[in-house]
Amino acid sequence: MAEFSPALMTDMYEYTMLDATLRDGTANRRCVFEIFTRHLPEGRRYGVVAGTGRILDALERFHLDDEDLRFLSDRGIVSRQTISWLENFRFSGSIRGYREGEMFFPNSPVLQVEGTFGECTLLETLLLSVLNYDCAVASAASRMATAANGRPCMDMGGRRTNEWAAVAAARAAVVGGFQGTANLLAAKMYGLKAIGTAAHCFTLVHDSERDAFVSQIDALGKNTTLLVDTYNIEEAVRTAVEVAGPELGGVRIDSGDLAALAQRVRNQLDALGATNTTITVTNDLDEYALASLQTAPVDSYGVGTRLVTGSGAPTCAMVYKLAEREGADGTMTPVAKKSKDKATVPGRKLAFRSYEYNLADCEHVIAGSEADLAAFRPEEGWKDLLVDFVDHGEIDSRYQGHDAIMAAHDYRAKALAELPITAQSLMRGEPVIPTETTVL
Amino acid sequence: MAEFSPALMTDMYEYTMLDATLRDGTANRRCVFEIFTRHLPEGRRYGVVAGTGRILDALERFHLDDEDLRFLSDRGIVSRQTISWLENFRFSGSIRGYREGEMFFPNSPVLQVEGTFGECTLLETLLLSVLNYDCAVASAASRMATAANGRPCMDMGGRRTNEWAAVAAARAAVVGGFQGTANLLAAKMYGLKAIGTAAHCFTLVHDSERDAFVSQIDALGKNTTLLVDTYNIEEAVRTAVEVAGPELGGVRIDSGDLAALAQRVRNQLDALGATNTTITVTNDLDEYALASLQTAPVDSYGVGTRLVTGSGAPTCAMVYKLAEREGADGTMTPVAKKSKDKATVPGRKLAFRSYEYNLADCEHVIAGSEADLAAFRPEEGWKDLLVDFVDHGEIDSRYQGHDAIMAAHDYRAKALAELPITAQSLMRGEPVIPTETTVL
Repeated sequence: MAEFSPALMTDMYEYTMLDATLRDGTANRRCVFEIFTRHLPEGRRYGVVAGTGRILDALERFHLDDEDLRFLSDRGIVSRQTISWLENFRFSGSIRGYREGEMFFPNSPVLQVEGTFGECTLLETLLLSVLNYDCAVASAASRMATAANGRPCMDMGGRRTNEWAAVAAARAAVVGGFQGTANLLAAKMYGLKAIGTAAHCFTLVHDSERDAFVSQIDALGKNTTLLVDTYNIEEAVRTAVEVAGPELGGVRIDSGDLAALAQRVRNQLDALGATNTTITVTNDLDEYALASLQTAPVDSYGVGTRLVTGSGAPTCAMVYKLAEREGADGTMTPVAKKSKDKATVPGRKLAFRSYEYNLADCEHVIAGSEADLAAFRPEEGWKDLLVDFVDHGEIDSRYQGHDAIMAAHDYRAKALAELPITAQSLMRGEPVIPTETTVL
Repeated sequence: MAEFSPALMTDMYEYTMLDATLRDGTANRRCVFEIFTRHLPEGRRYGVVAGTGRILDALERFHLDDEDLRFLSDRGIVSRQTISWLENFRFSGSIRGYREGEMFFPNSPVLQVEGTFGECTLLETLLLSVLNYDCAVASAASRMATAANGRPCMDMGGRRTNEWAAVAAARAAVVGGFQGTANLLAAKMYGLKAIGTAAHCFTLVHDSERDAFVSQIDALGKNTTLLVDTYNIEEAVRTAVEVAGPELGGVRIDSGDLAALAQRVRNQLDALGATNTTITVTNDLDEYALASLQTAPVDSYGVGTRLVTGSGAPTCAMVYKLAEREGADGTMTPVAKKSKDKATVPGRKLAFRSYEYNLADCEHVIAGSEADLAAFRPEEGWKDLLVDFVDHGEIDSRYQGHDAIMAAHDYRAKALAELPITAQSLMRGEPVIPTETTVL
């Protein structure tokens, strides 16, 4: 997998457009494409950027092997000339954008891709796939982490989404504020904390619940978490403490009225002397359920379906639009489409966030010609939101791998704390700060 | 990718349960696990099975290489004994279930996995990931294909979901009734029809819309589809026919009031003599939009976001439950958990569909001991819904690859036609036939 090229994870028209523009010469025109969303999911106050590190990983692998080229040729998708061009393809352009863990709003230019039309076009589908899904998960995770109010949230959603999406979701969840994942491939690829308890089948395959608990403790030690709702929870808790003693690590409850059950189980554990035994709950949790469990004696949450499906917003409506391109005379020219309800703002963008009393009060998107933008001076205290990820094909490896994910995890907490507190509300409403677009 | 093993696309607890049961011997108990959903997404009348062929592909690749084993060992997830067991792991059990393209309902046993506890446990997460996502997409696709009422639907959603999910979605869309996909990797892996037009950036990178159209026709021929809504649609259509002549293949509209625009464009094309030029529309379509476009002169649909996110139901809530296992005395024993609202029915299941006047009237799920099920005789005319996919580790290759997908595509149309016509309604309601579970 580490070597698999994402070059064909692409809509066919990217290749046919490349082919046509190589014929007429426009493939070589320098271009600036931008990724943004026109709106947040309904009622959401902010979004969280995730996936950029995965984009950089994918870029490293993005080349076409003989089999890919043969497919494009056999299907007649591109001409022989284009096959030659593709043989040595490597992205040689530059990419900047919002860092992972950064907040985004409508029209925030979360990624900016600069290069020739040909090379930028080939990346469109892949970049959007990664950002649309990863940002959806990170944005949901962030709301959940906020609602959990300091209690650790763990990703257990792999089974409820595509098997590769599961890996991306685990990573995005950590960017969005989660502590770990049940998904082993994600743990391996990204060095994430792996967590797990046991399933009901583990209890059922044994002749008794006691046998199952004894077996789990023999294998994993007393610090393990036992699943106690296969039959009768009260009996299971009693058996669990009998088997493990009061050093039992934890119990998991996966059904029923979680608040009431956590309270009963806590009292029972305490009465049995297992005062340090933790309680994990799972069962179709989302940010609203987590908020409602704040007063229940729960120690950690396992979140599945609603995390990996973006809690009602499984994609982000990010689009990839040409903002500026070289003209026939060699000068860069802002361009825009005029499609009804989908018109774009011409010109490359700068992006800043301004603050009042240490709280963000506006997202500033500044569009203009290269010369105008070069001369633009932001006001004092504005945060420049764009960082450089790729410089003429050179990837900045600081934004890849485990450390980048943990840095993004920390950054998201800080950036969220700098938004007005309404951002942490689960009430539906407008984005917590406005986006002001200025055309110079 | 073709060689990448999905063995770690798995929740950690599958491996720790394996480890514990290898220690105590229960890993070798023969088991029957079943996959089903307790309910369809709210208001849905039926679901469509998809993903089984992908499961068979994944099973062929499911083994642990040295790097996987080192990870499990270094992280202390399993013991040395388990590492040895995993070194030569190949699934040697049997799998049966609903064929791809078959309709499913609450409690339909869409997949049944039989083998030792150890080997069946390792597959849980992967099987659920595949079925939960692929069935969600196929079920949405089926509603869209029905609403399109014979007009071809094409998958253009890859950019709105995870990049690998996009490949699975393209395949599931075809199972669910779609004709093709924009996704090249899906087209390559599964031999699907690849389709494409052009993006707005293609028009914008050229000095004029006319230049762009000339370029596209030079490269792709007059039978191509030109995107006509970058600036002014009426002008674009006039230019398109001027450039290509009345043999122009098609035009695409991606914004605005699609019905009204299609009507205007159809009249304009006809007036220009381009009576065979087709009209494709795209722009956040779903089954409701398609139904509302029935009277508009549209020839084909490109569907994106709503397809790959299951049109409001991005996952299927499929679960994997132990139904029967070998006891200490070697006999197979039905088992079930009693968790509140999540109790299961003990025993392996048979599944049949009964018909009245050639229309399905009931899904029959029959549970019991091996002996009882062996003696069970369905009534005359009941369709046996379970087919054999894997027999003691031997995969039936008829359910893999391109031909299986096209067979599923055809099967889905036939199976849907055998349901009461309410299944084709977009009105929210109950599953179109009831599921009756009988415990022998």
